[in-house]
Amino acid sequence: MNSNLIVGQSGGPTSVINASLYGVVKEAHENKEINKIYGMLNGIEGLLNRRMIDFDELINSPSFEQLQYTPSAFLGSCRYKLPESFDDSTYRKIFEIFTEHEIGYFFYIGGNDSMDTVDKLSKYAAQINYEIRIIGVPKTIDNDLVITDHTPGFASAAKFVATSVREICLDVEGYKKPSVTIIEIMGRNAGWLTAASVLARNYHEDNPCLIYLPEIIFNMEKFIEDVRAQLKLRTNVVVAVSEGIRLGDDRFVCELLDTAGTDNFGHKKLSGCSKALDFEIRKHLGIKSRAVEFNVVQRCAAHGGSLTDIEEAVMSGRKSVEAALKGETGKMLAFIRKENKPYRMELESVDVCDVCNKEKKFPKEWITNNETDISSEFLDYIEPLIQGEPQVKTRGGLPHYVKLTKNSSSDEVKMVL
Amino acid sequence: MNSNLIVGQSGGPTSVINASLYGVVKEAHENKEINKIYGMLNGIEGLLNRRMIDFDELINSPSFEQLQYTPSAFLGSCRYKLPESFDDSTYRKIFEIFTEHEIGYFFYIGGNDSMDTVDKLSKYAAQINYEIRIIGVPKTIDNDLVITDHTPGFASAAKFVATSVREICLDVEGYKKPSVTIIEIMGRNAGWLTAASVLARNYHEDNPCLIYLPEIIFNMEKFIEDVRAQLKLRTNVVVAVSEGIRLGDDRFVCELLDTAGTDNFGHKKLSGCSKALDFEIRKHLGIKSRAVEFNVVQRCAAHGGSLTDIEEAVMSGRKSVEAALKGETGKMLAFIRKENKPYRMELESVDVCDVCNKEKKFPKEWITNNETDISSEFLDYIEPLIQGEPQVKTRGGLPHYVKLTKNSSSDEVKMVL
Repeated sequence: MNSNLIVGQSGGPTSVINASLYGVVKEAHENKEINKIYGMLNGIEGLLNRRMIDFDELINSPSFEQLQYTPSAFLGSCRYKLPESFDDSTYRKIFEIFTEHEIGYFFYIGGNDSMDTVDKLSKYAAQINYEIRIIGVPKTIDNDLVITDHTPGFASAAKFVATSVREICLDVEGYKKPSVTIIEIMGRNAGWLTAASVLARNYHEDNPCLIYLPEIIFNMEKFIEDVRAQLKLRTNVVVAVSEGIRLGDDRFVCELLDTAGTDNFGHKKLSGCSKALDFEIRKHLGIKSRAVEFNVVQRCAAHGGSLTDIEEAVMSGRKSVEAALKGETGKMLAFIRKENKPYRMELESVDVCDVCNKEKKFPKEWITNNETDISSEFLDYIEPLIQGEPQVKTRGGLPHYVKLTKNSSSDEVKMVL
Repeated sequence: MNSNLIVGQSGGPTSVINASLYGVVKEAHENKEINKIYGMLNGIEGLLNRRMIDFDELINSPSFEQLQYTPSAFLGSCRYKLPESFDDSTYRKIFEIFTEHEIGYFFYIGGNDSMDTVDKLSKYAAQINYEIRIIGVPKTIDNDLVITDHTPGFASAAKFVATSVREICLDVEGYKKPSVTIIEIMGRNAGWLTAASVLARNYHEDNPCLIYLPEIIFNMEKFIEDVRAQLKLRTNVVVAVSEGIRLGDDRFVCELLDTAGTDNFGHKKLSGCSKALDFEIRKHLGIKSRAVEFNVVQRCAAHGGSLTDIEEAVMSGRKSVEAALKGETGKMLAFIRKENKPYRMELESVDVCDVCNKEKKFPKEWITNNETDISSEFLDYIEPLIQGEPQVKTRGGLPHYVKLTKNSSSDEVKMVL
């Protein structure tokens, strides 16, 4: 069997996707059964163009340790869906490249769509009798992968959301003039990250006082009345909404602004629902209103991330290599919560075909108070995940993150230390 | 002379406006010449309604120490401009309240507009022969106060901007598909905070590769050509722009979107220039583009702030009390840089009338490279200011910030611990 390994990153970046990568590379490096460690640049898309780096040159750099604290996809990412038919030449090409580079281990760090890639490649390998271990390492800020208790990347994003919502509440509550602030949080179909805004409260009935998840059909008239009722209780109303909230006719709220597009997977590009709500608030309540979009910042804000999340991401990378060495393939590493207090988590490998192309929604029974609040069960669930602050090394007063420089003409790659 | 003190906060909040407040209250508390310490709620506007708290009840709380790490205006803020004419009854009313509460010391933490309040009150006090010490404590993320080397609040906001721009660059550079990302940073007329985005670079010619300050007239055609030229050098172009950039006809760029309003001081409410540029990029270059607004997050993100900034804010609060006790009035505390390497700063009191209603613009000679870049002189200036990370205590994994709860009906105030 081939003894070289290749690892890639795919989908939207997170704060800890590089911690998972670090875990894979470190574990592989420490293991004699694995020879060369390659990284594909921009995931499967880069692999198809033979764009890859050799980690042997990087792993001995003293800066390599900083990789686990560096946000976003160090190797670059892609949004590339493999064809449904195995007759497509793409599969042949990928396995030609595997053969060329003597690849026996393939690791893909990503979300639902990336697990689809893992599933297809492992099935194709079986069909053509190519001996390889293909493992998925979970990652997504959306926390929407099934079977796993949670997903690396979620907790750091949740901690950023909770901290920043708390800070915004302090900011807007500084004024005596009535106001509404609408904070838009990522999450296409699953409200996990938006729900994390509930952590921002300092006490019962504190802001954010209204929370809207995509699991519930959004009703504009009810929303205006919810805000109106809150304005009787407090001067400054802070609302947290998921970017993915939809109206009864299945349109996204942001589509009211007519700025939505579509990405390569056919997902609608969401942005702007807070602007749409801001507009409706001004129109119906004639009050000062402001829309705040966390935008990409929420998924890449490694400063102020969760140490637990980073450590678990590293562990999931390491365990995926262990699983491969045990002969497993077509698997994803899933987190199983063994105990909550004290928090104890274990990683188990599960069939990736049971995970891919599925979405774990936020439990409806955790959505309370006339569908505008989150129950304490969610707090019990999330609190262990956001514990601990990483000690990110600084240089010149700023976090020291590592990155690859890519010479766009020659495709030569260097690690910036 | 009266021995009670009152302190207030005014204007836009910052991450360290409470550190200044902490400094004033601690220094006053340690000093026997000062009897009671009052805080006005929502600045001069609250004072006029006799809305104030007594710090004696709060200062012995163990949580009081957290005040110096808590962002935004703990006492609440206001945007209230005192009348130009001293014949206005407002002045009589304020000094009646001073007399009632035996106020002999008045401290106001704020920016240009707040220094105008300090100036007017100290001149009115002289006119009516009311013996009082009135001192301004500088604060603004805009760094646009004259005479002082810099202003508390600026460095923490700058550090947030630099860190977040660095994280966003990592995020967007993860994709192989060409893109333009436009990051909109606060700053009405002065580009200091936007200039801080230059710190995000890891190496020469790194992103953000284009920076536009409000000190330079913005030309849309030149902007499109600047971006087009950068797209020949790199796949992902990151642009930092000040919210306050204006066209040759003096319109704000954001006015192209027709969403601007006006605040109480007659300042135009800015937001949305990045969306306007995003629109122009798509229109002229037909490329993937994204607008990111840091919005209020940049001024209240105490997590990841500058320890130097916090310490200097506390010191400015303490020194303002010292100055008052020496008999000074109508003054503001200004930072004077005595040495840069090693960094050494001193606080001196200056006449507030020389500060108020003036703006310190970003030096044009520090704007380089065809008006799209920032010179190394600025790096030398800003680097000492952003050093050090505050060790913010956490509770349940999140920063432990203190706040007052205000019962809206009874105006009763409690400190949340």
